[in-house]
Amino acid sequence: MSLDALIQSRKAGYTLPAPFYLSHEVYEQDVARIFGRYWIFVGVEPEIAEPGDFFTVEIGTDSIIIVRDDEMRINAFHNVCRHRGARLRNAGSGIVGNLVCPYHSWTYNLCGELIHNEHMGENFDRSQFSLKSVHVRSLAGLIFICLAAAPPEDFEAMRAALEPYIAPHDIAKSKVAYQLDIVEEGNWKLTMENNRECNHCSANHPELTVPLLEYGFGYQPTPENLSKMKRFEELLATEHRKWEACGLPSVAIDSLSGTTGFRAVRLPIAQHGESQTIDTKVACAKLLGKFEQPALGGLSVWTQPNSWQHLMSDHAVSFSVLPLAANRTLLRTRWLVHKDAQEGIDYDVNKLSSVWIATNAQDSALVERTHLGVSSPAYQPGPYSPYTEGLVNVFSEWYLKHLTL
Amino acid sequence: MSLDALIQSRKAGYTLPAPFYLSHEVYEQDVARIFGRYWIFVGVEPEIAEPGDFFTVEIGTDSIIIVRDDEMRINAFHNVCRHRGARLRNAGSGIVGNLVCPYHSWTYNLCGELIHNEHMGENFDRSQFSLKSVHVRSLAGLIFICLAAAPPEDFEAMRAALEPYIAPHDIAKSKVAYQLDIVEEGNWKLTMENNRECNHCSANHPELTVPLLEYGFGYQPTPENLSKMKRFEELLATEHRKWEACGLPSVAIDSLSGTTGFRAVRLPIAQHGESQTIDTKVACAKLLGKFEQPALGGLSVWTQPNSWQHLMSDHAVSFSVLPLAANRTLLRTRWLVHKDAQEGIDYDVNKLSSVWIATNAQDSALVERTHLGVSSPAYQPGPYSPYTEGLVNVFSEWYLKHLTL
Amino acid sequence: MSLDALIQSRKAGYTLPAPFYLSHEVYEQDVARIFGRYWIFVGVEPEIAEPGDFFTVEIGTDSIIIVRDDEMRINAFHNVCRHRGARLRNAGSGIVGNLVCPYHSWTYNLCGELIHNEHMGENFDRSQFSLKSVHVRSLAGLIFICLAAAPPEDFEAMRAALEPYIAPHDIAKSKVAYQLDIVEEGNWKLTMENNRECNHCSANHPELTVPLLEYGFGYQPTPENLSKMKRFEELLATEHRKWEACGLPSVAIDSLSGTTGFRAVRLPIAQHGESQTIDTKVACAKLLGKFEQPALGGLSVWTQPNSWQHLMSDHAVSFSVLPLAANRTLLRTRWLVHKDAQEGIDYDVNKLSSVWIATNAQDSALVERTHLGVSSPAYQPGPYSPYTEGLVNVFSEWYLKHLTL
Repeated sequence: MSLDALIQSRKAGYTLPAPFYLSHEVYEQDVARIFGRYWIFVGVEPEIAEPGDFFTVEIGTDSIIIVRDDEMRINAFHNVCRHRGARLRNAGSGIVGNLVCPYHSWTYNLCGELIHNEHMGENFDRSQFSLKSVHVRSLAGLIFICLAAAPPEDFEAMRAALEPYIAPHDIAKSKVAYQLDIVEEGNWKLTMENNRECNHCSANHPELTVPLLEYGFGYQPTPENLSKMKRFEELLATEHRKWEACGLPSVAIDSLSGTTGFRAVRLPIAQHGESQTIDTKVACAKLLGKFEQPALGGLSVWTQPNSWQHLMSDHAVSFSVLPLAANRTLLRTRWLVHKDAQEGIDYDVNKLSSVWIATNAQDSALVERTHLGVSSPAYQPGPYSPYTEGLVNVFSEWYLKHLTL
Repeated sequence: MSLDALIQSRKAGYTLPAPFYLSHEVYEQDVARIFGRYWIFVGVEPEIAEPGDFFTVEIGTDSIIIVRDDEMRINAFHNVCRHRGARLRNAGSGIVGNLVCPYHSWTYNLCGELIHNEHMGENFDRSQFSLKSVHVRSLAGLIFICLAAAPPEDFEAMRAALEPYIAPHDIAKSKVAYQLDIVEEGNWKLTMENNRECNHCSANHPELTVPLLEYGFGYQPTPENLSKMKRFEELLATEHRKWEACGLPSVAIDSLSGTTGFRAVRLPIAQHGESQTIDTKVACAKLLGKFEQPALGGLSVWTQPNSWQHLMSDHAVSFSVLPLAANRTLLRTRWLVHKDAQEGIDYDVNKLSSVWIATNAQDSALVERTHLGVSSPAYQPGPYSPYTEGLVNVFSEWYLKHLTL
Repeated sequence: MSLDALIQSRKAGYTLPAPFYLSHEVYEQDVARIFGRYWIFVGVEPEIAEPGDFFTVEIGTDSIIIVRDDEMRINAFHNVCRHRGARLRNAGSGIVGNLVCPYHSWTYNLCGELIHNEHMGENFDRSQFSLKSVHVRSLAGLIFICLAAAPPEDFEAMRAALEPYIAPHDIAKSKVAYQLDIVEEGNWKLTMENNRECNHCSANHPELTVPLLEYGFGYQPTPENLSKMKRFEELLATEHRKWEACGLPSVAIDSLSGTTGFRAVRLPIAQHGESQTIDTKVACAKLLGKFEQPALGGLSVWTQPNSWQHLMSDHAVSFSVLPLAANRTLLRTRWLVHKDAQEGIDYDVNKLSSVWIATNAQDSALVERTHLGVSSPAYQPGPYSPYTEGLVNVFSEWYLKHLTL
């Protein structure tokens, strides 16, 4: 079946037809047309705080080096030597003066220019052999790349909308306290669908549902829960007024259907109201940015097609999703605290990370379980809940629209 | 080459052309057209003795739940939630009250009906979201499923012919004393071909050839062995008369070429004549069914396309074969004893299982060796022996005929 | 893209377009058209010194048995039984009287004739079921096979040219002191390209560059190195005169572009000038052949498409390359010493093998790194150095020409 016919075969409001999750051909289209053409979240500025700091990002069979140069600019290059095609740097992160290929020592500066090589003859023109660059932008410390020659132009609209929400958390002045890679045994879209709803939370996330308020992510109104839902709405309005009065934009903004799609909202946290931790209190005594009070709820930010972020007063958790194969997905999670916070004094890494380490493992099992299920010839797309799975549907529709656009 | 052309290219009486063993496309056709359309042996009733007992069967990328309901009926369902497609139960076995999807708690009763879910709105019609059922039947305790909408109708003919042979062993009143899964590194048809002849036994199965009589599985008549063959035929006739007089059907019945193909015969066992054990005596003091004497030989039953069974007075060994990939096959073996037999008192698991554990391992090595050999571009189909490999040829012809029927 | 179009797309003097390294279809063509049609180096005579000695060679999904028969001839057969297609011998080496299939004991003599089997009936004609033979030739102890029905005829021209160089080292009277298989995670052509230049040596091979003289493998002339290059050329000429006077052909002969392509040259070794060891002295006190003096430099021999050899006075190192998949390659290395040399007395295996064990591991990492790099969609073929990578270019051109010839 052609990709267009496959897209047409999807029933509105239902999960995707099986080939979108299973087919190697669709996976290759996802890599080429989704991850190859839109703005992809790949990391945070604290990962490359100083000149020469770099990390790599693997997308499909590609590898991209994200590096801070001596002028403090962030540059991105394909991780491939222009001589014999060797990968310049192993996947990972580190510090470099120049980018030197280990094979025959071709040497590039941090702007990607070839500045040294040998035996190529006197007429060899080095300027023709710069590293191939990749578009890269930082939005309040969140780093996005775009592999297309001409990236979507609405990135700046996202920046204008999101920066006021995120900037007070001052990601650029934070550091990575912990980072974790998980390979999920399922299609990347199942990872994203799982992220876009929390109706699975109560049955699967005993840790996360301590700080999370269950009415924050949608509910079917029934006579029994009407009063609870109303109380939640009132709490939300009260908190939003309070936080906005402090200069913290908090009300929901939603542009998830846009080409560079995004959504943000600041949500109350249960009990002490401070942080997504097992006791709902801050895990880091030194707060982010210029915050002075801990109970600021949690700013949640989602971007299409591959990220979500939770930013509290004391720390932020940043998630990126990258496809490895039709049935394998990399979920990279970073826990950020103020760059001057001291481990063992201001924060304990275990307390900081335990809720999301547990939640990620639980979600990973759900993604694998769903991948196994949709692999059955008996799988038939099922209906999303209109009350709790609306954002899942928005993700699926964004994906289908932008796959062939 | 098309499947039809490939089938045409097979030379009568010879092994199959290589693509039947190697090609991923043929493997997918095998799963769809053989395992997807005929009656497949998947287990025995003692695996699900009580209400709520279930086990799963994995065929290709499908998973089927076989469950006993509260009315003691055996039901079979595709192991896929109708909501987001999650696999309901992990591969394996267990006991359940209802079938509850771990993802969002959609709950099905043991008849497959959706009886609970939330947030789908008031107009949601649960009756449209039952689990998808699979045809399932028990023949004297042997459980067969058929994934087709309209299963072959000659199952009842097989039942009428086989039940008198098998029923005296009373499988429903047995229990699984031991179960073993082996993944063989070869095509499932090589596993079946290996099972359908015993001319490889003398060189490969030092344990199994203790209880087995070598003339039971065919021999080329020569001047040297004519008297031995004649003695075997006389022994067989004598034993058959004796056993049939006791009410045990024993003479060979063969319908292996039928759509729901099968064969059964009761064969003498060497030395003490009791059981397929290393000393040819019973391994379980408490006999199956209502048997009172141990020396009843061994009832062997074969079904197309994927099983064989050996039933003795004291225990039965039940084998099912399921394809995992063109070059990987699951062989599941169950050793059954009377359900009231006590381990350590009536039987020792090691003695019970050692002959077939060893034999399975030897056969697995032969299957792998043959898969490696037929993978050579120099492989050319070779001739089956007209004396010892007739049933192999019957299997191959059954397969070729039913692949495209 | 068709193979022809792909070949046309290659820019002269540049590395190959990515599909040549990555595509499974090209891999299959490589196996069929390169390894299936040309003379492939597979081992050395000392591996099968006595009647009944055999080793197997795996090429693609094929396996070939190389065996010495009772008349001391070297025969080669496809490792597949003509009955049910079982692989006769596991991959590896050993000693046999006949070749007996473990499945049903079909028995072939060392000339490949079926001499025993049972149950096939009186009219069965064994002469129709000989093992399928493979062309095999020895060149001064180096064993080559050709899987084609009609092998390239210029093998004898290679023999005439190379035998005078190699014969003095008397490989047939050597033994394998050590053998090592490495699986490199990259395309076999990257393994070969890596072998065909030593400009990567200084940055990657700290051990090998002790015995190797850096000017032996090409250099861009610059004002700074002109005098050094000249000194090397003078040394080379002096040594060649000296060695040739001793009856050792030494000057370069190059027919790498021929169908059965090859090259040989005897090169000086640094410091003591004796051997490719970490102290540049012989690692085996008993010299090869009839050599009496240790400082004979190193005879390097390269054959297309898959071998190189280094022969010194005391030992030889023999390399063969076989593709396992588009991204996996077997490098088999043998270290040979005089057959009468005694381990622990005349030689120490560690000293003998350490330089090339280290070098192989370093090269394997480079091959993997290059395979990863050329897997990037951003990879674009890069220019070979005209001074140091000329033989790489010759390899690539040989490959492209002979792939479709």
